Amino acid sequence: MTKWICFEEDGQERIGILEDEQIIVHNGDLFDDPTPTDIRRPLDAVRLLPPCRPSKVIALWNNFRQLAAKLAVPEPEEPLYLLKAISSITAPGAVICRPQAYDGKVVYEGERGIVIGRRLRNATETQAADGIFGYTCVNDITAAEIISRDKTFAQWARAKSFDGFGPFGPVIATDLDPMSLHVRTELNGMERQNYPLEDMIFPPASLISALSRDMTLLPGDLICCGTSLGVGSIKEASNSISVTIDGIGTLSNTFTQ
Amino acid sequence: MTKWICFEEDGQERIGILEDEQIIVHNGDLFDDPTPTDIRRPLDAVRLLPPCRPSKVIALWNNFRQLAAKLAVPEPEEPLYLLKAISSITAPGAVICRPQAYDGKVVYEGERGIVIGRRLRNATETQAADGIFGYTCVNDITAAEIISRDKTFAQWARAKSFDGFGPFGPVIATDLDPMSLHVRTELNGMERQNYPLEDMIFPPASLISALSRDMTLLPGDLICCGTSLGVGSIKEASNSISVTIDGIGTLSNTFTQ
Repeated sequence: MTKWICFEEDGQERIGILEDEQIIVHNGDLFDDPTPTDIRRPLDAVRLLPPCRPSKVIALWNNFRQLAAKLAVPEPEEPLYLLKAISSITAPGAVICRPQAYDGKVVYEGERGIVIGRRLRNATETQAADGIFGYTCVNDITAAEIISRDKTFAQWARAKSFDGFGPFGPVIATDLDPMSLHVRTELNGMERQNYPLEDMIFPPASLISALSRDMTLLPGDLICCGTSLGVGSIKEASNSISVTIDGIGTLSNTFTQ
Repeated sequence: MTKWICFEEDGQERIGILEDEQIIVHNGDLFDDPTPTDIRRPLDAVRLLPPCRPSKVIALWNNFRQLAAKLAVPEPEEPLYLLKAISSITAPGAVICRPQAYDGKVVYEGERGIVIGRRLRNATETQAADGIFGYTCVNDITAAEIISRDKTFAQWARAKSFDGFGPFGPVIATDLDPMSLHVRTELNGMERQNYPLEDMIFPPASLISALSRDMTLLPGDLICCGTSLGVGSIKEASNSISVTIDGIGTLSNTFTQ
């Protein structure tokens, strides 16, 4: 397994492989065979950036059986999704502020993210599996009261696209078994979500294949796989939220009101 | 008024000002004071590109009073919108093909597009008006039968994000009166839409101000203002579709089944 990470140095974006709390800095494009350098940076000395720059963020709704059962909605026949604005993306460790224009309930949604590694269009499941670069942790933050406040139009994109509502990272891990892991979310030190990825209705290869029949997927595109049980409100003045997937790591952010 | 245009030359993207069917080629960034060169290119000798590269495409729903009345939906209290994937963008003149994975009704939606010229966040209406770079023509093509085929989740983003479903151009026109114009759509030579922009529920400055309170808008971002009466199905084997706004020009595309 390789853990790719991205950080800022002298105003530049640098990439590298994380090993034992050290970053082996690489040159070149993350998705086009970057080459290692002799440069090492300690993880705790750098400012992390989002591990890649998606051209689009696709976020699944209703993709876990346990949550579908709890919400008493049927399991969907095809992937159901919205797009999150890429301006919502923020870095591991970033402080996320409540939007000035919204005073309602804000919820965390711990999720697994899939990062695309190559251009995919009308891909078979085998091609889709080959086109997955790796996996990451996502917090799909949502202004929950916006979604249904207009009776004629569900405002999914808006509720999930405020600046800072799309943190992901800290790394993109390659060569993981995509179904054997758990997603754990902690809010202010208390575990609030702990669900198995094997409960996914559309697992990665079939999901990516289906999405690629709707639109061309590009290297770096981020697919948020949807969440499961335990979504909840972020209520304190300052909140620490972490999303952990074993083998990937922990995405930690602070949310302030 | 200035009409900015973008074209391809020797594999490079070039920008320029369109005057009398000639392009005055410019160097630099469209949104950062590009400088004129001595180079001229005849419009009919170049391959046009989309006039800018949006980082996001925001598409309004229910933003015209006449259409709201016809559909018997209330006029919204705030802008209602979805995001279109930027992979749906295509150039003026491009041939758009029916997606392999969808055999239902496809509709054209002639719209006016607003192109953002500077970073806008929590902008006042005055700041929003100053932050508008210009206006363009959009065809917000939609796989209409996808939107409501799942009873639990309206699939707006998917229905409007197929590759090629987001042509815009041919130019971005600056210094236009944003409310005095009409949008006219022709399908295979027959006029199908002809509606006044003064009928917009949220006109440009208030719309952009509101959107900037939801998410940061960046130079090149495209806001599709929504459509009005006359949306219809694209049925022939090969179809010519044009969206004309006086003062901007005509966006023409071919749609094949």
